[in-house]
Amino acid sequence: MRETGPLVHNITNFVAMNVMANVQLAIGASPAMVHAREEVAEFAGLAGALTVNIGTADPDWGAAMETAATVMRDAGRPWVLDPVGVAATRFRQDLCDRLLDLGPSVVRGNASEIRTLAGLAGSARGVDAGDSVEAAEEAARALSSRTGGVIAVSGETDFVTDGTRAAHVRNGHPLMSRITVMGCSLNGVIGAFCVDQPVFEATAAALAAYGVAGEAAGRTATGPGSFQVAFLDALHHLSPEDLDRDARIEGPA
Amino acid sequence: MRETGPLVHNITNFVAMNVMANVQLAIGASPAMVHAREEVAEFAGLAGALTVNIGTADPDWGAAMETAATVMRDAGRPWVLDPVGVAATRFRQDLCDRLLDLGPSVVRGNASEIRTLAGLAGSARGVDAGDSVEAAEEAARALSSRTGGVIAVSGETDFVTDGTRAAHVRNGHPLMSRITVMGCSLNGVIGAFCVDQPVFEATAAALAAYGVAGEAAGRTATGPGSFQVAFLDALHHLSPEDLDRDARIEGPA
Amino acid sequence: MRETGPLVHNITNFVAMNVMANVQLAIGASPAMVHAREEVAEFAGLAGALTVNIGTADPDWGAAMETAATVMRDAGRPWVLDPVGVAATRFRQDLCDRLLDLGPSVVRGNASEIRTLAGLAGSARGVDAGDSVEAAEEAARALSSRTGGVIAVSGETDFVTDGTRAAHVRNGHPLMSRITVMGCSLNGVIGAFCVDQPVFEATAAALAAYGVAGEAAGRTATGPGSFQVAFLDALHHLSPEDLDRDARIEGPA
Repeated sequence: MRETGPLVHNITNFVAMNVMANVQLAIGASPAMVHAREEVAEFAGLAGALTVNIGTADPDWGAAMETAATVMRDAGRPWVLDPVGVAATRFRQDLCDRLLDLGPSVVRGNASEIRTLAGLAGSARGVDAGDSVEAAEEAARALSSRTGGVIAVSGETDFVTDGTRAAHVRNGHPLMSRITVMGCSLNGVIGAFCVDQPVFEATAAALAAYGVAGEAAGRTATGPGSFQVAFLDALHHLSPEDLDRDARIEGPA
Repeated sequence: MRETGPLVHNITNFVAMNVMANVQLAIGASPAMVHAREEVAEFAGLAGALTVNIGTADPDWGAAMETAATVMRDAGRPWVLDPVGVAATRFRQDLCDRLLDLGPSVVRGNASEIRTLAGLAGSARGVDAGDSVEAAEEAARALSSRTGGVIAVSGETDFVTDGTRAAHVRNGHPLMSRITVMGCSLNGVIGAFCVDQPVFEATAAALAAYGVAGEAAGRTATGPGSFQVAFLDALHHLSPEDLDRDARIEGPA
Repeated sequence: MRETGPLVHNITNFVAMNVMANVQLAIGASPAMVHAREEVAEFAGLAGALTVNIGTADPDWGAAMETAATVMRDAGRPWVLDPVGVAATRFRQDLCDRLLDLGPSVVRGNASEIRTLAGLAGSARGVDAGDSVEAAEEAARALSSRTGGVIAVSGETDFVTDGTRAAHVRNGHPLMSRITVMGCSLNGVIGAFCVDQPVFEATAAALAAYGVAGEAAGRTATGPGSFQVAFLDALHHLSPEDLDRDARIEGPA
């Protein structure tokens, strides 16, 4: 990826934009944030992957997401959905319902978000999960059978499935949950990893890479401020060899 | 607060969103940025407190602010107004006028903003204060009698009043004025502190906590970049004992 | 500038807002981000300079840019255009076409952006340049004859021309291209430098100052995370003496 620098089109929330762009640059991708309805289809046509995040969406942004996702689906290129806080409001549920119909290559969320998308009651509060990853594994399999794509549940141990295969990823650091948009930015990494790669394997590798960089950052950070700085440095220096050595992926099974 | 992790709903400006979210996470709150008119009332119904900041508002965002503030007022839950740059334009003055009618629990601004809201001429320029905190104390009392709530004036020494009682808070560091959205993010801390707490005392404590963390950051920072990093780490590690020891609150009187 | 603290009005993209504000504060300017059509003309009337960046524009934001630029043009005050990703979509090209008609004091972009504005084919991909600065020098001269203003092409060596004079600026550090919105934020520095100063000289000085701070940051940074922190600290400490000693400006010729 550091050689090809794939262009990734992101329609994400206002909180995440800057961090997600820096995270994508740190792994060697070329990020662009584009949402205007007048240009979103044309831009998606140029991109190797699309990431969509509903965190601060409104109806105009929602329409742009649907347009761009349709372009990617029709072109057979990957797109990733992050259903931020979907349990909180009817507006988010309706928007996600329309986006799920467009067959996202990957849906990544926390346990409460994935449970909500699968139609299960959960104990979300705002944008934070109130459920364990374990309690969302069956929901992830069910959701995969709806979308035909990969579902990833983020948490202390991540779970990823394509409906048939499944894997657990045991990388990461506790401070990652004390910094905003770490999950949102992870979707940017998944999108970049999926360009011209098999989606299930790319998603698991992205989860592991993110977690390995988090572990490296956690070895020097003294709080969430210094963690963010060290995390971006660690992602920038992460090599395929580091990833092979430190990734703790169990499965697929 | 680190145990209950109160959900705080923020409708804030684009510049502040990421930093405010990280500041709220660092003190143990659970932030969410939600502004779409289609969901803002439903989301406010879930939140322990609301913060509103007009820094980059437009008429749609202004309407969302009024809707969410109405929900909080009717539910008897706290909401905090930050009248960024209100002296600069008629649009900001009209929007603040409507928001003040909804009885914000706390209005926090710099001296020029508070003077403008109280109908006094000031010497603001853009979003920066041109007046001293001292010159805004009477304006703060007058504004409090309009809103029925607490007014806080930020500056080298902060002033806080509920119209009857008043206190000065003498914590902080000069670099805090050389970094953007430090005032905006402070409103996020005030909102979180006010959840289920008496508003005057919570506001004074929030001002002190923010300033104490700033002093800690100032002991190691070598400029505004390293200050931001150290500040977030300091907020994350700030304990009730630190706050009791280092807070310099004079009053209430 | 550190004494006068000029007010700079920015209509920039969501990704850049926070960093640009901090960069402008670090050099002593007073930044404000204001875009609502209901107030943008009134606010521009207060500002010493305006910066416009189309990175995440939509038609409403585009209209606000035209309104504010018209105020600055009519008042004879400087305004700076950053044509982010203009090669990517027709919407961006049309918007830039209207903005160029308003005579920006400075247009700063990467080589592919400047070539596109001059009507030449380029090899942009997304928002990144695919062309060398050298390959855009003639385009810059041609574009200057259209706008009547200064054109700056950013890259490993920057090129700046007012159509008659030209200079190369050889400051900077490779990590600057691995961090998002470094170019966008540079426009904020150019805008601030242009307040009450001759535009060509101010632009060259801004490019050099930015690069000198980058070199200082590069001496201690170990990746893009620590670079950003060190860069803001370096800008904050940059003195006129540092700039005189370390600027590598060749020309004007």
